[in-house]
Amino acid sequence: MSMTFASRMDSLRASEIREILKITQREEVISFAGGLPAPELFPVEMLKEISVQVLAEAGRSALQYSTTEGYEPLRRKIAERIGRKFQTKVDAQRILITCGSQQALDFSGKLFLDAGDVVLCESPTYLAAISAFRAYQPQFVEVPTDDDGMIIEALEKILATTDRVKLVYVIPDFQNPTGRTWSLTRRRQLMETVTRYGIPVIEDNPYGELRFEGEILPSLKSMDTAGLVIGTGTFSKTFCPGMRIGWLVAEPEVIEKFVLIKQGADLCTSLRSQMEINLFMERFDFEANLQQLTDLYRKRRNAMLEALDEMMPAGVKFTRPQGGLFLWVELPPQLRAVELLQECLKRDVAFVPGDAFFPNGGVKNTLRLNYSNMPEERIREGIRRLAAAIKTVG
Amino acid sequence: MSMTFASRMDSLRASEIREILKITQREEVISFAGGLPAPELFPVEMLKEISVQVLAEAGRSALQYSTTEGYEPLRRKIAERIGRKFQTKVDAQRILITCGSQQALDFSGKLFLDAGDVVLCESPTYLAAISAFRAYQPQFVEVPTDDDGMIIEALEKILATTDRVKLVYVIPDFQNPTGRTWSLTRRRQLMETVTRYGIPVIEDNPYGELRFEGEILPSLKSMDTAGLVIGTGTFSKTFCPGMRIGWLVAEPEVIEKFVLIKQGADLCTSLRSQMEINLFMERFDFEANLQQLTDLYRKRRNAMLEALDEMMPAGVKFTRPQGGLFLWVELPPQLRAVELLQECLKRDVAFVPGDAFFPNGGVKNTLRLNYSNMPEERIREGIRRLAAAIKTVG
Repeated sequence: MSMTFASRMDSLRASEIREILKITQREEVISFAGGLPAPELFPVEMLKEISVQVLAEAGRSALQYSTTEGYEPLRRKIAERIGRKFQTKVDAQRILITCGSQQALDFSGKLFLDAGDVVLCESPTYLAAISAFRAYQPQFVEVPTDDDGMIIEALEKILATTDRVKLVYVIPDFQNPTGRTWSLTRRRQLMETVTRYGIPVIEDNPYGELRFEGEILPSLKSMDTAGLVIGTGTFSKTFCPGMRIGWLVAEPEVIEKFVLIKQGADLCTSLRSQMEINLFMERFDFEANLQQLTDLYRKRRNAMLEALDEMMPAGVKFTRPQGGLFLWVELPPQLRAVELLQECLKRDVAFVPGDAFFPNGGVKNTLRLNYSNMPEERIREGIRRLAAAIKTVG
Repeated sequence: MSMTFASRMDSLRASEIREILKITQREEVISFAGGLPAPELFPVEMLKEISVQVLAEAGRSALQYSTTEGYEPLRRKIAERIGRKFQTKVDAQRILITCGSQQALDFSGKLFLDAGDVVLCESPTYLAAISAFRAYQPQFVEVPTDDDGMIIEALEKILATTDRVKLVYVIPDFQNPTGRTWSLTRRRQLMETVTRYGIPVIEDNPYGELRFEGEILPSLKSMDTAGLVIGTGTFSKTFCPGMRIGWLVAEPEVIEKFVLIKQGADLCTSLRSQMEINLFMERFDFEANLQQLTDLYRKRRNAMLEALDEMMPAGVKFTRPQGGLFLWVELPPQLRAVELLQECLKRDVAFVPGDAFFPNGGVKNTLRLNYSNMPEERIREGIRRLAAAIKTVG
């Protein structure tokens, strides 16, 4: 068999995270590699009730084809929630239901990117966003980033000297992979800059509701006077990933285009799943469930930070996230995360080398650690092994 | 707001079917326009039990992220079924679970098509496949078709004189929109031709299990000696659309590429939905459920054909499908289906004008009728109104 694939396939590679996860599925491995929510808090019992109720009350329509836009009552609830939480004041017409927020990223690439167009992103940025956009053959230009978000002077310089910038892609809240959150000033500066240039912004926000301390900052969408921001969100991290329900927030003219894209891509998202989340919010206390999750992740983040503070050798830096699922480690420049991973796998501990999160590669001494998916004693033990491995390779 | 969208968006238009369906949602309209399965046979009661059992036995993993490839036991069952039914003898490694078969079509376009590449298709062909492929900016070349399938002499002529043919897209069983089924001879001839040219074939088969009479013919995939056929299938028509579970069948090297595409597009399909269908097949009689559906659709097809035989004016031709959901009407050449639709809407009856099913347009005197979604007396009444409208415009 020798088939000719489309040229985009030359740049699509197997996700390194997925390949590593395959190795680390053995019970004995302490894996900081994934990004999985804690399944012990999935509302399994409540969902049994909800599931039966949805089928009893609306089985035939729940199981039929449904509108591409999504279930109106759920769209209204999402609009109300993001208005209340992130000051994203929108109506249901500005919400499109997607199959997780990953689909929202794929659709954003499809809507905006011709081959050769430029996507500006944080350096580093979310691995699966790179994969989603790469299918549309853009160039990635990485914008230098510090603890407060993108460095706007650097962004301005890039915009002044780069043609064909079609998108800015950012994760302002508890970024994947770094766990960093943009300051209010940087949010305002970014919006001032992109508005001046008229460039659309994808504001990816899967983790924003998982805040451990401090106040939620207003979304970029809440500062969007020119209709340039396209927001994404998901129930994967606040409820459970298996529902596969996420959303896009955008102006009606943009939602209209996304609807065309979704019709060609998968017709519609399961109405039953949408009705279930909607009913769950009506019957049960979604916020209390979310609070439990946040409390659990806070403990795990604390456990990881304490262990890192105590055990990491000098010269190893790490972020202190205020929410979300991840933190980011920078090794001394001479250390290579890939070699460290080999050493770690011997000790049954795993992480994702940071290189994969830089679309243009070349950063060898960083790694991403996930703390949401295991108990505190496992976290502590895993960091102990990681520290020992660093001493071995260092 | 003035955003620059990708050039592909110039060719994506709102689906005419969806626009018409919006008009026809009023209760009093007899709509032959959609393609909806009969919801009265959705196994709602059984799904209540199944849903609770899946959550009880595997809630935490069912609601977590899952593998991109899909749930292994379900992949095995699909492989066994299509082997038994269509002689598509494959193992589970050759099956990828998708979000309905629409996603399989989108992925096929993404895998094979660069802008300007040529897709060969039946004339007419499935509207939403045109939409899916159009996002990758191909040219469509329509191959003339008769009651036995594509006319292979015409296909040969096109292949001999056309550059950049990257895909052949066909629906050999109960085609949408015509209801026609390819003969065994044509299937063999097609495979002989594409194998000589080394061109991949998408064999779309959403309706094949809904056969009212006669024997199921072997799939193109069963005759595929060179690994060129990519098959699609779905539970939307044999179970219910709201599960959003379909699949791709292809050789392992091709499945590997589709997995990369799916990772970027939506990470994974709901494991819970996959487990539910899998458990349904283990606990209940899937074939008996399918037989009930087939019996119901046969009655409705009969009702429509009887009404058409009795009431259509001379000069109106129509197909006599042996299965599936649709039949195809050809009006006398001077009549225009769009004008007829206006006349029909006054009488509260609707259909889809055939023009939308020709990717390059230009055929004005055809229409598609769906018979799966309403009782026989409504079908008869709708055809009576259609006949009256034809007499008015004719």
